[in-house]
Amino acid sequence: MIDNFIYSTPTELIFGKDVVNGLPEVMKRFGKNVLMTYGGGSIKKSGLYDKVIELLKDFTIIELSGIEPNPKYDPSVITGAKLCKENDIDVILSVGGGSVLDCSKAISVCAKYDGEGWDLISGKVKAEAALPIVDILTLAATGSEYDCGCVISYTAINDKRGYMDPLMFPAVSFLDPQYTFSVSKWQTACGTADAINHVLEQFFSSPHSLFNDGIMVSALRSLMVNVKIALDDPTNYAARSELMYVCSWGCNGILANGAGYSGWPMHSIEHALSAYFDITHGAGLAIITPRWMKKILSEKTVERFVVLGKELFGLDASLSDFEMANKVIDEFYAFFESIGIPMHLSELGVKADKIEEMADHILANDNTNEPWMYVPLNKEALIDILTASM
Amino acid sequence: MIDNFIYSTPTELIFGKDVVNGLPEVMKRFGKNVLMTYGGGSIKKSGLYDKVIELLKDFTIIELSGIEPNPKYDPSVITGAKLCKENDIDVILSVGGGSVLDCSKAISVCAKYDGEGWDLISGKVKAEAALPIVDILTLAATGSEYDCGCVISYTAINDKRGYMDPLMFPAVSFLDPQYTFSVSKWQTACGTADAINHVLEQFFSSPHSLFNDGIMVSALRSLMVNVKIALDDPTNYAARSELMYVCSWGCNGILANGAGYSGWPMHSIEHALSAYFDITHGAGLAIITPRWMKKILSEKTVERFVVLGKELFGLDASLSDFEMANKVIDEFYAFFESIGIPMHLSELGVKADKIEEMADHILANDNTNEPWMYVPLNKEALIDILTASM
Repeated sequence: MIDNFIYSTPTELIFGKDVVNGLPEVMKRFGKNVLMTYGGGSIKKSGLYDKVIELLKDFTIIELSGIEPNPKYDPSVITGAKLCKENDIDVILSVGGGSVLDCSKAISVCAKYDGEGWDLISGKVKAEAALPIVDILTLAATGSEYDCGCVISYTAINDKRGYMDPLMFPAVSFLDPQYTFSVSKWQTACGTADAINHVLEQFFSSPHSLFNDGIMVSALRSLMVNVKIALDDPTNYAARSELMYVCSWGCNGILANGAGYSGWPMHSIEHALSAYFDITHGAGLAIITPRWMKKILSEKTVERFVVLGKELFGLDASLSDFEMANKVIDEFYAFFESIGIPMHLSELGVKADKIEEMADHILANDNTNEPWMYVPLNKEALIDILTASM
Repeated sequence: MIDNFIYSTPTELIFGKDVVNGLPEVMKRFGKNVLMTYGGGSIKKSGLYDKVIELLKDFTIIELSGIEPNPKYDPSVITGAKLCKENDIDVILSVGGGSVLDCSKAISVCAKYDGEGWDLISGKVKAEAALPIVDILTLAATGSEYDCGCVISYTAINDKRGYMDPLMFPAVSFLDPQYTFSVSKWQTACGTADAINHVLEQFFSSPHSLFNDGIMVSALRSLMVNVKIALDDPTNYAARSELMYVCSWGCNGILANGAGYSGWPMHSIEHALSAYFDITHGAGLAIITPRWMKKILSEKTVERFVVLGKELFGLDASLSDFEMANKVIDEFYAFFESIGIPMHLSELGVKADKIEEMADHILANDNTNEPWMYVPLNKEALIDILTASM
């Protein structure tokens, strides 16, 4: 059954080998004054920075560099918005991964707002306008290039917010898989684990349909097969192109239109882990996944596991539903281990004595125990999942 | 491998039970003067007409009714464009199936053009503007509600054109599956056969990817399972909702982004059949499908059939590739027969003595023999397919 939904993603995807050569034509649509945003300088090493500067030689470029892996309201968003206002910026060009793009999205609305930008990000005030965003993606993971959300931290007030507004859909996303050839094995594995988790968060919801189930199983299969090829052979275009494309579907809703919204509990748990121990997001998700699955397995949820068992892992259809579910959980564990993710939080520096505090933090900041969650998680359940993940 | 592509579909889908109640809010975005387009009056029988008139009581509505199943440039598009110009229309509201919507799309560009509208539709002149379109869909089949194409006939000059322009994406498509409850068994079967063929035309192309293959297999599975439920139980919401959603994915490219373009040969053949014998599009496609498959089966193409055999039909993996391919073809034949489509063109009134003329017509009007087709079809091949379909 396809339940009621509203869906629209206006972003133009320009995908493939050397598509960035078309950048000037695209940028002309929006104007002459460009705020170019990027991170720590990997685009200078790779040559992409020089290429963009050369391509945009007829534009006026203001740069905002040094955007953090977990982008900060202060200084990055504040500085970016100020640069936009002072320089009459027409369009933001984000060059990098999901963090640079998330920061650029926040800048795009703050640049068009006269008050305190955090009021927009924290949901106090509804944005009314945004600068257009064009991005060149260099990492396959978050799906930010094809959604209208961003995650922004405001360190001074210990706040971190997920913020969504259709105004922040990128106007155009350039996706050239060749720019992901140089992504490290660790980042390739963690980016893929992130994307796998995006699919699973949506797969475990209700109601179901043959169509959505098939799309999600296909996304999982593609990610799981192609990440192994890319890890063995980092410049394999076929594998990198499929990873990049599938990741872009992760978070805009298209994987599960009409499947209802039943929460993203593994992301809620992982955000606490990242906040307390600054671990890599995708690795945290991979570790939590099989433990969350074990915890929520029940008569109510077992059907979801059976679909994965039959369609994704090709397990023996004569197994009982619960046997199959437990095998599915083992398969995910073994898969994440096989791509090089240490499957215990302790290996990433997480300390067991913070588990209770993190459980309280999750309950205070997130909706894991709401009755509309696919499976509500109270404090005890959160502690169990975190403890099992150690 | 995901090959280079450009993709964007800005249309907002508003899907589900009773969503049409939100029509006034949506229409307000565009203005007060509405051209309401519809067909032969089934919306009056169903009560939808009265509902729309009541919902839009604060708007000024000009009506264009009687739009034909194969919409005509003269009189429908010409009349509609004239009505728009004379009444300062702000937005077109299309209420009906794919034909009404196709006609509305053509009107939307002709209304903003001072010259002869056919110059736009025939590709002589590029459109520069269009009126926005909102639609309420009453038939799951063509996917026009989520693409930017239309097919328009100009009887006076014996011309029929497929015309695409991103200006013609509907701004908003209202999809309430309840409006398809009253669709006849014949139209339900033929609409689904049309959608199945949309998937197959894109499945038989190159290059392939796990992700796209999985999406397309999922679409086929959903259509084939749910049409049987809907035929047995026409008011089954779960089945009707899934049919309506999957059909909307048919033609905007999203099923196979990066799979290259290798032609729509079965549609080319069917358009000739419709032109000569005015048969129902979906029925013609269903009849041609297994015959086209038999004709193009070869060492080069057999891999496509094997994917369908294993993933869609769950056939015995120990079969040889060609055994499996032939079973796949038999499965499609049996499926179409099982949903009530007569599987011989002669049963629809097609005459064998027109086959050669139709083959010439196809070659003259379409690209079936171009070298970039998935499998080019020369005159002999077209005659073979049509003859086998009799």
